Amino acid sequence: MEQRLSLVSLGVADVAAATAFYERLGWQRSQANSNEHITFFQLGGIILGLYGGQALADDIGIDYSDRLGFNGVTLAFNARSKDEVDAVLAEAKAAGANIVKAAEDVFWGGYSGYFADPDGHHWEVAWNPFFPISDDGAITLPE
Amino acid sequence: MEQRLSLVSLGVADVAAATAFYERLGWQRSQANSNEHITFFQLGGIILGLYGGQALADDIGIDYSDRLGFNGVTLAFNARSKDEVDAVLAEAKAAGANIVKAAEDVFWGGYSGYFADPDGHHWEVAWNPFFPISDDGAITLPE
Repeated sequence: MEQRLSLVSLGVADVAAATAFYERLGWQRSQANSNEHITFFQLGGIILGLYGGQALADDIGIDYSDRLGFNGVTLAFNARSKDEVDAVLAEAKAAGANIVKAAEDVFWGGYSGYFADPDGHHWEVAWNPFFPISDDGAITLPE
Repeated sequence: MEQRLSLVSLGVADVAAATAFYERLGWQRSQANSNEHITFFQLGGIILGLYGGQALADDIGIDYSDRLGFNGVTLAFNARSKDEVDAVLAEAKAAGANIVKAAEDVFWGGYSGYFADPDGHHWEVAWNPFFPISDDGAITLPE
C-alpha cells in the first residue's frame, strides 16, 4: 500500500447545509463532480467529500447512529501565522461553526484552537513554526 | 480560510500498536518527528498523525468515550487498478485489519471495499476510473 491518502469523507446530516458552511469559509466545491447527494472539494493533492452519514454507513454496510461527542478524528488547518489562526477561527465562527477551544499558546511551541463544523467534525486551526508550508499549501515534516 | 487540509489525526488506543499496524502496510513513519506519544506519516502534501484518543480529546478539552461502531469519517486510498484494490485489502488483512466490506463493483462505476484499522477507523480502498492519480500519488477531480 503506497504511503498516501486520496479522500477524506465526512458524514453529514444534510449535504446542502454542510456544503453551505464550507462555502461560507470561502471554499469552492467542484461543480463538475458534486450533486445533491455528495459534494467534493479539491484540497491540494487530496479530495474532501461531504456525504450523508447514513449513506456513508450504508456504503460500508454498517450501522449508523447519530454521533454524540467526539468521534476520534481531527482535521487540521495549519496557518502561516498566529494572526491567521485568529482570523480563521473568527471566519469559522461567522460561518456557523462552534468554537470548541479558543486559540492559545500550546505546549509543543505553537498556537492552536479548535472549531467544530455543524455536524460536529473537529478542525484544529494551528500555527506550527516547525512544519513548513509551501506556497501551494503543501505541508512537510522536517527531516 | 484557504482551501486546503494539513493534517488528519486519528485517535488510537495504543500509539505503538497503531504505528506497528501502519508499518506492516509498508509505511515509514517520520523518525525525526515521532515519539512515544505521537507518530507522524508524510502522505504527499499532508500529514497523518496517530495520537492517543484520550490525549486528542484532552487537547481539544472535550470528553472522550471509547467509540462503538461508526465514527462518521472515512479515509480513502485510491488504487490504480482493480487488482491493486484486491492486493491492498489482502495486505491490510495480513497486517491485522478487519475487512468490513469485500471489494465489489459499485454503482458509481468503480470497485471498492473497506477495512477498519485496529482502532476502528474505516479506510475505503477503491479504484475510481474517473479521478486521475498522478505518478506522485496526488488525486485530482476532473474538470
